[in-house]
Amino acid sequence: MFKINTNYQKLPGSYLFAAIGKKVREYSAAHPDKKVISLGIGDVTQPLAPAVITALHGAVDEMASAETFKGYAPDLGYEFLRKAIVEGDFASRGCDIQPDEIFVSDGAKCDCGNIQELFSLDNKVAVCDPVYPVYVDSNVMAGRTGTYDPKTETWSDVIYMPCTEGNQFVPELPKETPDLIYLCFPNNPTGSAITKAQLQEWVDYANRVGAVILYDAAYEAYISEPDIPHSIYECEGARTCAIEFHSFSKNAGFTGVRLGYTVIPKDLKCGDVTLHSMWARRHGTKYNGAPYIIQKAGEAVYTAEGRAQTMAQVAYYMENAKTIYNGLKEAGYSVYGGVNSPYVWLKISGSMNSWEFFDYLLENANVVGTPGSGFGPSGEGYFRLTGFGTRENTIEAVERIKKL
Amino acid sequence: MFKINTNYQKLPGSYLFAAIGKKVREYSAAHPDKKVISLGIGDVTQPLAPAVITALHGAVDEMASAETFKGYAPDLGYEFLRKAIVEGDFASRGCDIQPDEIFVSDGAKCDCGNIQELFSLDNKVAVCDPVYPVYVDSNVMAGRTGTYDPKTETWSDVIYMPCTEGNQFVPELPKETPDLIYLCFPNNPTGSAITKAQLQEWVDYANRVGAVILYDAAYEAYISEPDIPHSIYECEGARTCAIEFHSFSKNAGFTGVRLGYTVIPKDLKCGDVTLHSMWARRHGTKYNGAPYIIQKAGEAVYTAEGRAQTMAQVAYYMENAKTIYNGLKEAGYSVYGGVNSPYVWLKISGSMNSWEFFDYLLENANVVGTPGSGFGPSGEGYFRLTGFGTRENTIEAVERIKKL
Repeated sequence: MFKINTNYQKLPGSYLFAAIGKKVREYSAAHPDKKVISLGIGDVTQPLAPAVITALHGAVDEMASAETFKGYAPDLGYEFLRKAIVEGDFASRGCDIQPDEIFVSDGAKCDCGNIQELFSLDNKVAVCDPVYPVYVDSNVMAGRTGTYDPKTETWSDVIYMPCTEGNQFVPELPKETPDLIYLCFPNNPTGSAITKAQLQEWVDYANRVGAVILYDAAYEAYISEPDIPHSIYECEGARTCAIEFHSFSKNAGFTGVRLGYTVIPKDLKCGDVTLHSMWARRHGTKYNGAPYIIQKAGEAVYTAEGRAQTMAQVAYYMENAKTIYNGLKEAGYSVYGGVNSPYVWLKISGSMNSWEFFDYLLENANVVGTPGSGFGPSGEGYFRLTGFGTRENTIEAVERIKKL
Repeated sequence: MFKINTNYQKLPGSYLFAAIGKKVREYSAAHPDKKVISLGIGDVTQPLAPAVITALHGAVDEMASAETFKGYAPDLGYEFLRKAIVEGDFASRGCDIQPDEIFVSDGAKCDCGNIQELFSLDNKVAVCDPVYPVYVDSNVMAGRTGTYDPKTETWSDVIYMPCTEGNQFVPELPKETPDLIYLCFPNNPTGSAITKAQLQEWVDYANRVGAVILYDAAYEAYISEPDIPHSIYECEGARTCAIEFHSFSKNAGFTGVRLGYTVIPKDLKCGDVTLHSMWARRHGTKYNGAPYIIQKAGEAVYTAEGRAQTMAQVAYYMENAKTIYNGLKEAGYSVYGGVNSPYVWLKISGSMNSWEFFDYLLENANVVGTPGSGFGPSGEGYFRLTGFGTRENTIEAVERIKKL
């Protein structure tokens, strides 16, 4: 008789955003007259940039003719895209990353979820608290996290690094030594950023203790201040300790287009074995590449025209974040983030917990956000709002919240 | 100090098709004057059907406007596609499969590779021999296959079910009871098909012993004979024992477009736990859906126009398979497959083994195929050729082989 992977049964509740979606659908079904505004899941609302649309149409036409039709893509992704990525995201910032260290994929979420497969099950994982749920959940599914304590909402074998007002939401080096360190900056959910000097400390630490930093740079396009690194490879020594994840979802509105990439420098080794070779083997065996037409769309993001257009989208969302940030501040809330990030991290005043505040906002303002506790115990008492809505909805949502 | 998943190190050599690609690139570099024809990897050569192209352009236009732009897709895939799938592939064949039992993905390879995550590490896997490498390799990576014996090229904890001339390449029920049974019909690599009565035996067996059949139906569009089931759900009782994988790669030429789906009936349970709920959790946590525009392309495959056009492509490839089959037979080879499958399975005459025959064909006919031994020990002495080339190349390749 077959048996299941019982680690799945250890996961408490459903995936955070699925749970929120269910609550919203139920509310909307019961109140069809209410206009619910979502500043919740972090999905974008602006259409694709014209340069991207042109590239997509062009690539579709290529697929219509035998002479230009493309079948299976190269395992790592098309070279035209990997070269554009290196030029646009690394060489231009002085980072030493080569095209064959780029693995094109269908999104940072998948890569962040799958990367743990390369590591031993007894490796110790450290995460920020609060944190994007995928890092922990994917390790739970693999059996790397020990037992769950529902009272503290923590796993026995995970090192939690609290990110609080006290440390301006940038974690301190952990007391217990981890093997794998998930870092995401600009941060989801707190919207905080890390300076280059602070990140250099992490790189030095990882090299010292032999840990791998799994660096999620999905929001780097939202960085507005100088001295905030766009890539961990801006730090010295990162090539021997860091894997970096990038997404086209937030910088170019590709949430429904699906494209991302992961960087694994060939200097990152365990003994003689490069993690690069392992990920290449995984890509070859369990993945079949991002669609050609989507890779062409990704290439268009790096053209002068595409870059100008997608940067305008980012500016639009950042204006929303500012609207939320300033509006909530006016309304008397303590707010964080929103400067180098599309996320605003709101401190809930009074006695409500995060989910109670979620229900309160949904029912009284018909506004959807994300309960901070869904990201980890230190997120309790906080609430995430995103700048990814339309301008009109964002302004209306903030006005509604201000009136409460 | 971090440690790697040492199961990866157990994998002998590189992924089969990566190894072939390397050999071909090296040969071509050394002989730039030779025109190498590939009847190897099973990649298609015909452009996308006009109905698919129209759908792609239409969906791209939708992404260009805020009113019709689509962000994150629903976890299981868009309902329009899941409904079209159910209508076209199941209801029309009398199979009781509901739209919410369909999980849309970026391809059958990924799903076949990832599905093993749902099962306990001590579950026993049975595979046909020869077999599509992904089934075994993904289980090796997870640590489910024991130790590798390079002499027999087998894993200690895998049940191999030989598929030979003797059983017309349809496996017998194994002596040792498996927990997970990978079946692929029409078969890759042998091109053999299974009758409904034969498949019913497998379904009955799986229900009797409590095993799950992981049924790869990627080639069902190539079935030309009656009484060959297109889906395992044509068999009674399959809802309690079978997961089925489908691909758009071969029936609609989507190898570079990336679309597939997996069916998990809600009746498939381990105790109270449905595998459906587990896969939904995995989809929600470690995957983010196929691109909207690609899902629209998939929907177009099920329209009357799309179906007629893609069936014409299938007929084109089957004509190629027939050309290979008949040509090689004329040349004195024993050949199998090619009737309900785009694959022709050639028995190598004389003393050459599969890789020697690969080199021989590459060097003397400049034709690339796939060595049978790459698919498992019982594939030794055989060679796979595919009908996915162009007509012109296929005819030329066969003529070259006949002249040897």
